[in-house]
Amino acid sequence: MTEERIARIADAVVRAIRSSSDKKTSGFGLNEARILIRKVEDKAKTMGLNVVVAVSDSSGRPIAVECMDDAYIASYDVAVNKAFTVVALKMSTKKLSALAAPGGSLYGIQHTNDGKIVIFGGGDPLLYNGKIIGGLGVSGGSEEQDTALSAYGAGLVDDILKNL
Amino acid sequence: MTEERIARIADAVVRAIRSSSDKKTSGFGLNEARILIRKVEDKAKTMGLNVVVAVSDSSGRPIAVECMDDAYIASYDVAVNKAFTVVALKMSTKKLSALAAPGGSLYGIQHTNDGKIVIFGGGDPLLYNGKIIGGLGVSGGSEEQDTALSAYGAGLVDDILKNL
Amino acid sequence: MTEERIARIADAVVRAIRSSSDKKTSGFGLNEARILIRKVEDKAKTMGLNVVVAVSDSSGRPIAVECMDDAYIASYDVAVNKAFTVVALKMSTKKLSALAAPGGSLYGIQHTNDGKIVIFGGGDPLLYNGKIIGGLGVSGGSEEQDTALSAYGAGLVDDILKNL
Amino acid sequence: MTEERIARIADAVVRAIRSSSDKKTSGFGLNEARILIRKVEDKAKTMGLNVVVAVSDSSGRPIAVECMDDAYIASYDVAVNKAFTVVALKMSTKKLSALAAPGGSLYGIQHTNDGKIVIFGGGDPLLYNGKIIGGLGVSGGSEEQDTALSAYGAGLVDDILKNL
Repeated sequence: MTEERIARIADAVVRAIRSSSDKKTSGFGLNEARILIRKVEDKAKTMGLNVVVAVSDSSGRPIAVECMDDAYIASYDVAVNKAFTVVALKMSTKKLSALAAPGGSLYGIQHTNDGKIVIFGGGDPLLYNGKIIGGLGVSGGSEEQDTALSAYGAGLVDDILKNL
Repeated sequence: MTEERIARIADAVVRAIRSSSDKKTSGFGLNEARILIRKVEDKAKTMGLNVVVAVSDSSGRPIAVECMDDAYIASYDVAVNKAFTVVALKMSTKKLSALAAPGGSLYGIQHTNDGKIVIFGGGDPLLYNGKIIGGLGVSGGSEEQDTALSAYGAGLVDDILKNL
Repeated sequence: MTEERIARIADAVVRAIRSSSDKKTSGFGLNEARILIRKVEDKAKTMGLNVVVAVSDSSGRPIAVECMDDAYIASYDVAVNKAFTVVALKMSTKKLSALAAPGGSLYGIQHTNDGKIVIFGGGDPLLYNGKIIGGLGVSGGSEEQDTALSAYGAGLVDDILKNL
Repeated sequence: MTEERIARIADAVVRAIRSSSDKKTSGFGLNEARILIRKVEDKAKTMGLNVVVAVSDSSGRPIAVECMDDAYIASYDVAVNKAFTVVALKMSTKKLSALAAPGGSLYGIQHTNDGKIVIFGGGDPLLYNGKIIGGLGVSGGSEEQDTALSAYGAGLVDDILKNL
C-alpha cells in the first residue's frame, strides 16, 4: 500500500467513526433526514400537494418533521405515526393496511399502541444494506399519493447516504 | 420606487390587514359562532331533537359549544371532535365516513389523532370565499339528522358574515 | 283565592314542570347557562380581559362553553376542567388550591382524575337553595381576576333562576 | 405617484396577499420556521449542545421539528410542547415557571391540558409587530441553556421576516 492509500483509509475510518458517534445510532441522522424530507416535499409540489413529512430513526423516534404550508392539521400526527409504525412493525403502512383490515391477521392492531399505529398507505421503512435504519411518513394527499410519495422517498436513501 | 420597496410596502399592507382583525385569525369569532349555534338549535327543535352544537375556528380549536337540555352526554365530545375533524381534514365527516370505512383509503384514521377524528356524519367545514374559516359539529340525532343539521348550518355562514 | 295567588301558583307549576322535564336534572339548563356566561363575559370586558367561560351541570358535564375572541388557547381546557372540578369536589378551585398545595391534605389530587382537576382559582360551584346545581369555570386573566369573575358569576345564580 | 406605480403596488399587494394565503394564517410558514430552527441549532452547536427545536404556528400547532443527532429522546415531546405552551398561554415557559411553582398563582396548570403545558424555561412566543405569530421550543441543555436558546431564537423573528 502506498502512503497515500494508507492516509485515505485512515481518513475514511476517522470519518466513519465520527459520523457514527455524531449521528443517531441508525447512521441516518438529521442531515440525511432533512435532505430526504426536502426531496419528498419537492415531489409533492409537482403533484400539487401540501404534505407533512416525518422521518424517524431506527428506534421509531422522530428525527425531523416538516409541515408544508396549508397541509392538513391532522396530517402532523398521521405522518409522525406512520414514521413510527413502519419501524415498529418493519413494513410499509400500505402492506399493513391489508393485514389490519377486517379479516386480516393483524385486525385490531391499530388499538394496541396508544393510537400510534397507522394502517393506511404513506409510510415506508428506510433500508440501507438490508437493515432498517429509519422510517418515513407522508400525509396530505390521497392514500395513493401518500403511498407513492413515501415509496419515492424510501428509494432515495441509498443515494443520500452515498453522497454524504 | 424600486421593486424591492414596492414588495416591502405590499408586505406591510398585508401584515397591517392581518393584524387589524380583532377576532381569531379565521375572521369568524364568538359572535358569529353564537348566531350559527342558535340557528342550528332552532332547526333541531323543529325536528324534535336535543343536540350538542360545537363551532371551531380555522385551527380546529373550539370557539363555543352548547348542549341543548337533555342532549346525550356522549354528544359533547362527539360534537367538539367533529368540529375539529372537519378543519383538520378539510372535509365533512360524512365524506370522511366513506373514506374511513373498512376497505376505504383512510380506514383506521379514527385511531391516529388521539381519538379526535370522527368518521360519521354531522360535521361540516365552514367556508367563506372558498376558504375554511372554521368547523361545525352537531351530535344528538341519527347520523342522517346530524348530517342534515351540520349541512344546514354550514350553508348559513355567508349570510351570518354579511349581516354583521 | 285572589288573582295574584292564582298567578303565583301557576308560575310555580310552570317552573316545576320546566325544571323537571325540559332541563337537565340540575334544574339549571342551557338558557340559564347562556345568561350566566354572558354576564361573566360582560364583566370580563370591563376588566379588559378575554376569557373562556364554561358552565357545567350538577354532574360536572359541560352545558355551554364560550371563548371570547383572542382568549388563551389553553383557557378552553382550563375553564371546562374548572367547571368540572368544582362539582366533582364540591368546592371552589380557590379553596382547593390551598388543600392541594405541597403539605396540604389533598396534595397530589391533580394527578388522580385524568388531568381534569384544576387547583388554582377561577372555578366556583353554583348553588341554589343550598344545593350544587352546576359549576362555573373562568380562565383568561390572572388567578385573582379569574377567581373574582367566577365568584361574581356564582353570585348571580339566584337572580337568574328567579327571573326565569 | 404615477398611475403605473399605483397599479404596480396594487399588483404587488394582490401577489403578497395571495402568497400569504399559501402560508399558515400566522404569516409565519415553513420557510421561516426552517431558517429559525437552523439558527438556533447553530447557536446550540457553539454551546456544545444537541437540542430539539420545534416551531409552532399562531394556533400552537407544529410547523417543523428537528432533533439534532444525539439529542435526548425526551426532548422531542418537551420541545413540541414548549412551542405549544408559549402560544397557548402567550408567555415564555420561563415566565410561566414562576407562576406554576408551588405557591404560584398557576400552580397545577401542567396537569390541565393533557400534559401539553411545560413549566420550565426553553420556550418563547414569536412576536411580530406585537402579535404572537408562533412559538419556539428548545430542549436539550440545562434549563438556563434552553432558555437562552429560545430567547435567542425569538429575537431573530424580525430579521427573518424582513429578509424574506
